Amino acid sequence: MITAGIVGGTGYTGVELLRLLAQHPEVRIQAITSRKEAGQPVAELFPSLRGHVDLAFCDPAEAHLDQCDLVFFATPNGIAMQQARELVKAGVRVIDLAADFRIKDVALWEQWYGMSHACPELVAEAVYGLPEINRSAIAKARVVANPGCYPTAVQLGFLPLVEAGVIDVAHLIADAKSGVSGAGRKAETHTLFAEASDNFKAYGVAGHRHLPEISQGLGLAAGSAVGLTFVPHLTPMIRGIHATLYGQLQRKVDLQALFEARYAHEPFVDVLPRGSHPETRSVRASNMCRIAVHQPQGGNTVVVLSAIDNLVKGAAGQAVHNMNLMFGLPETLGLTQVPVMP
Amino acid sequence: MITAGIVGGTGYTGVELLRLLAQHPEVRIQAITSRKEAGQPVAELFPSLRGHVDLAFCDPAEAHLDQCDLVFFATPNGIAMQQARELVKAGVRVIDLAADFRIKDVALWEQWYGMSHACPELVAEAVYGLPEINRSAIAKARVVANPGCYPTAVQLGFLPLVEAGVIDVAHLIADAKSGVSGAGRKAETHTLFAEASDNFKAYGVAGHRHLPEISQGLGLAAGSAVGLTFVPHLTPMIRGIHATLYGQLQRKVDLQALFEARYAHEPFVDVLPRGSHPETRSVRASNMCRIAVHQPQGGNTVVVLSAIDNLVKGAAGQAVHNMNLMFGLPETLGLTQVPVMP
Amino acid sequence: MITAGIVGGTGYTGVELLRLLAQHPEVRIQAITSRKEAGQPVAELFPSLRGHVDLAFCDPAEAHLDQCDLVFFATPNGIAMQQARELVKAGVRVIDLAADFRIKDVALWEQWYGMSHACPELVAEAVYGLPEINRSAIAKARVVANPGCYPTAVQLGFLPLVEAGVIDVAHLIADAKSGVSGAGRKAETHTLFAEASDNFKAYGVAGHRHLPEISQGLGLAAGSAVGLTFVPHLTPMIRGIHATLYGQLQRKVDLQALFEARYAHEPFVDVLPRGSHPETRSVRASNMCRIAVHQPQGGNTVVVLSAIDNLVKGAAGQAVHNMNLMFGLPETLGLTQVPVMP
Amino acid sequence: MITAGIVGGTGYTGVELLRLLAQHPEVRIQAITSRKEAGQPVAELFPSLRGHVDLAFCDPAEAHLDQCDLVFFATPNGIAMQQARELVKAGVRVIDLAADFRIKDVALWEQWYGMSHACPELVAEAVYGLPEINRSAIAKARVVANPGCYPTAVQLGFLPLVEAGVIDVAHLIADAKSGVSGAGRKAETHTLFAEASDNFKAYGVAGHRHLPEISQGLGLAAGSAVGLTFVPHLTPMIRGIHATLYGQLQRKVDLQALFEARYAHEPFVDVLPRGSHPETRSVRASNMCRIAVHQPQGGNTVVVLSAIDNLVKGAAGQAVHNMNLMFGLPETLGLTQVPVMP
Repeated sequence: MITAGIVGGTGYTGVELLRLLAQHPEVRIQAITSRKEAGQPVAELFPSLRGHVDLAFCDPAEAHLDQCDLVFFATPNGIAMQQARELVKAGVRVIDLAADFRIKDVALWEQWYGMSHACPELVAEAVYGLPEINRSAIAKARVVANPGCYPTAVQLGFLPLVEAGVIDVAHLIADAKSGVSGAGRKAETHTLFAEASDNFKAYGVAGHRHLPEISQGLGLAAGSAVGLTFVPHLTPMIRGIHATLYGQLQRKVDLQALFEARYAHEPFVDVLPRGSHPETRSVRASNMCRIAVHQPQGGNTVVVLSAIDNLVKGAAGQAVHNMNLMFGLPETLGLTQVPVMP
Repeated sequence: MITAGIVGGTGYTGVELLRLLAQHPEVRIQAITSRKEAGQPVAELFPSLRGHVDLAFCDPAEAHLDQCDLVFFATPNGIAMQQARELVKAGVRVIDLAADFRIKDVALWEQWYGMSHACPELVAEAVYGLPEINRSAIAKARVVANPGCYPTAVQLGFLPLVEAGVIDVAHLIADAKSGVSGAGRKAETHTLFAEASDNFKAYGVAGHRHLPEISQGLGLAAGSAVGLTFVPHLTPMIRGIHATLYGQLQRKVDLQALFEARYAHEPFVDVLPRGSHPETRSVRASNMCRIAVHQPQGGNTVVVLSAIDNLVKGAAGQAVHNMNLMFGLPETLGLTQVPVMP
Repeated sequence: MITAGIVGGTGYTGVELLRLLAQHPEVRIQAITSRKEAGQPVAELFPSLRGHVDLAFCDPAEAHLDQCDLVFFATPNGIAMQQARELVKAGVRVIDLAADFRIKDVALWEQWYGMSHACPELVAEAVYGLPEINRSAIAKARVVANPGCYPTAVQLGFLPLVEAGVIDVAHLIADAKSGVSGAGRKAETHTLFAEASDNFKAYGVAGHRHLPEISQGLGLAAGSAVGLTFVPHLTPMIRGIHATLYGQLQRKVDLQALFEARYAHEPFVDVLPRGSHPETRSVRASNMCRIAVHQPQGGNTVVVLSAIDNLVKGAAGQAVHNMNLMFGLPETLGLTQVPVMP
Repeated sequence: MITAGIVGGTGYTGVELLRLLAQHPEVRIQAITSRKEAGQPVAELFPSLRGHVDLAFCDPAEAHLDQCDLVFFATPNGIAMQQARELVKAGVRVIDLAADFRIKDVALWEQWYGMSHACPELVAEAVYGLPEINRSAIAKARVVANPGCYPTAVQLGFLPLVEAGVIDVAHLIADAKSGVSGAGRKAETHTLFAEASDNFKAYGVAGHRHLPEISQGLGLAAGSAVGLTFVPHLTPMIRGIHATLYGQLQRKVDLQALFEARYAHEPFVDVLPRGSHPETRSVRASNMCRIAVHQPQGGNTVVVLSAIDNLVKGAAGQAVHNMNLMFGLPETLGLTQVPVMP
């Protein structure tokens, strides 16, 4: 039984983590902290958890996180880096669902995230928690940097092509569409129902924080720097990311076979049959990534469609997958929910 | 292990039944029939089931349903009544998710459903599958009439009041709102996204088929005929029913205590704390019914708010609950999913 | 040409007022104030207005509102009452789209709105701006209290019955459903897309501020106090209110004829043919209220369905209607937009 | 006063055309035909038109379309080509909102649309109704082929770049997202609310009928064949298309100035300020196309964002614009509606 703590459980990744951990047979949640909501029963804030989670939010000072086997940070950026050092010192393993440990180049991180990094030495040590590339390193990691939602969908879609060296990595295009829960549970005008409903828009075209994260991952896979144009969009749905990826093929290849081979043994990547179009709802509330690859009109442009649930494979589910790896459990334990459709 | 068959698995109650049964530890699905889709893998029509359901739809003639322990009918009205007699004769137990066996007064049924009943003798025998009132009868039933979605939400909300004899049963009002999946997966203009989205309307005010079903159930609880005004509405969400119920109190009563006592031992009815407002999403994809009771301004009018997922507690989940009862399994087996929120 | 000012134009009623006034042939907007956005072009905040509104928000201090013929307050409650006295003294007429002047009983207002009233003498003078009952008084008014959105839909639905004395006014029930824009443009968690989408809930069952407003209006029509149970709900659409109203008939009456006669000459109330169900989208972006009246199963319970666009007939459109009346213009001037469907 | 007929008014382009023409000061609708709905008042099918359109649908045989000045075809593909010849012979001008006259290469058209063309000689004569490139030809045309919705958004976005010769036309990428009304009002499973809501997917990646139309238009602008990868997506909103366009710059250019100059005199193309992201709702229910151009990280990849309302600028509004041009009316007559926001 893993004793786990959650720091910052009042956002969407927090409540999703609770949904998954409440059903996980090998986890006991010791504490869930929130300075603001301390004392309030979790199920009062999130009635969906009534009968499943009996804890109350507690003040970080009283959470005894150093007695946990594992602490999840479901916090805004910049929090985990302040607390991880001490926890690691106490022998606690850490999974950060925010961005603090994702970018190896600390200067680059500081530029994109607009703050000084409080714990650069753990950045160096931290393992990027995309199991499909780092499985064995994750198993031994003390600190796992859980990938961003866009980076998960985009990297899984591009990886087979980049690793096989069949596309021009200097001109990659990722046109990604996210449901509104990706923006979090914070009250903001642009994510109000009356603003985001019946509406579609791009945002952050000039530069989005997930760009350096994706570039880092694809660069490692390619063995060289990549050129990526990344355009995120907000689409009026709650959950889901759909990434439409474009690249220029540099040689002839059986794309379907390439993708199927790459992900043959991956429990959470499902390569759809030739000609398919994954829908985000086909992964809703599940940890699956569904991918289809196309070569329209037989031209040089390859089109990859990659769909995930941003809160599961793009956040809490991937974190639980990482936990399973870190503690030697079956990878899919607690993660076999059937997607909710319709 | 229960060997189960599903007749008519291409609609929403069918796919939801598959979602639940695929995760149920004591069920093996022997066959799922669809004349129209015979031969097609289920997971091709419903990609959400990829990796969870390996069956193909089969022609009813080849389904060997008579070798099942249990057959679910997830069909339109009028199908189960044609096949149930033979199955029952073969020792197969039947749960009909449609309306064929719900109304004891066959003439009344024929009037509302516009067809002759093909199997009146099983109507007499069939048990109305609302576990909260018929638990023990369900356990022994050969034929269970699974309740309608509106009737489930409305009856569970009114029952404590009617059973306790504290309201005027001659003037009950049920103002119910349903998500669009309640209309089924059949292609129709008025349930198109561009018609039903960003829109709200009442329908069937002159008379809806669930009216006699609700009246029958409440009449039995009251011990006399009830007068009910039932107004259903279509609301732009996928899943969920929210019933707002109004009645005139005839004597002073502690409403909160009454409701809590009535449902103290019910695993799937959750009476919320005083002053609460259940949201449909708090039961999304779960078998829970959440209820709150109010007495605005301390007047005589009692207001009950009752929320369910129409496809789970209002259809497939309740059917699985009934199955558990019929086969002596723990009631909540396979039905403990945490609601998906957000 | 009317010279109009708008105080507080950054909310939904503000931008809707701008949409309507920008197309009105007899209005010149002199100033639109916002302390917070002063200096910012209106069309920068609301790109839908590019090419239609060239003004920038200005500081109230520099707006010279006392030189306007008319000032609209599209502000939160409690603002108009602080500024109206001075404007009226300067000969400016005022339409308050908030609640400051709606309730004649100042003590009652203070109780529901939780503040002291700054200008009780204008409450006494103010005319309740529901043209269907106060047409001639509005024409002469110096201060018009524009009705709330729920009160507009509910009163228009009940008025024919109450005025004709055919229902039991002691037991009125109004079950009302609102789109999310009714909650305004303020950033709040519960109106986020990821919270309010694919969800339905009641709120404020214990008591909502629109209750005393409706009761006052119906009480005046009835000539005696009324008993009203009012339950508002949040439904996942942007615009629209659908009120489902219930009453007990006290004598036989041709309901259809009653409603048609009452609204025969009203340009913005459309009584639908017998058996109809008005959809909110049939009035989307228009100033129309569509009503249908039913008597299910020929019983004593009358059901009225009343649909409006909360931002038009429930706010900005009714304000423009009032303006037309106050300045002797044709009532429908600038308000003949065809509803946007789908 | 133009006497206009509409063939096939029961779909979304039909009802939208009626919304616009009902408000147009220089048009009298003589007849609107529908074989299926003949005899039914238009406002009964579309209650939003009550009080605005008094016509009933009539049988084509009784419509006397040959006495109109202009006939709009708001029909499925393949209808206009069967009736246009006779109408033109009778001196009636024709605007086809479907695809019959859009593709100059008849063989190519037949291949994509799967039928023989009934009227190739009018294909040769027909003018492609994109006013921004064919204004003067439209003015004199007997037959106008109203552009498709995707082609309008994509061409307007690419045109300045292609005409100026600054991008590699061999590798254009158009990632387009459409609201569900783009699929029409026909009852189909995949556009049901419960299927299309809270969901996002690509479709037709292997080839969509708008591909040859866009390629033809951009090829004419480029003076040579273009290579285009076009990926359409379905997004859960009613109206709106958002096209995200990618191209490789071949030389340095001030993109903002280029776009502003190209559309300086276009009443229905709005180039947003540098750094903007057009939202589809900012053009909802209006004939405007809003465009922003970006050059992320100063690289070679240009990103154009182009937003229209698919039913207005992408269909009925552009048809009215064409009508205005054909009959010498001010271009914006009847098309100055302020977008509906929120």
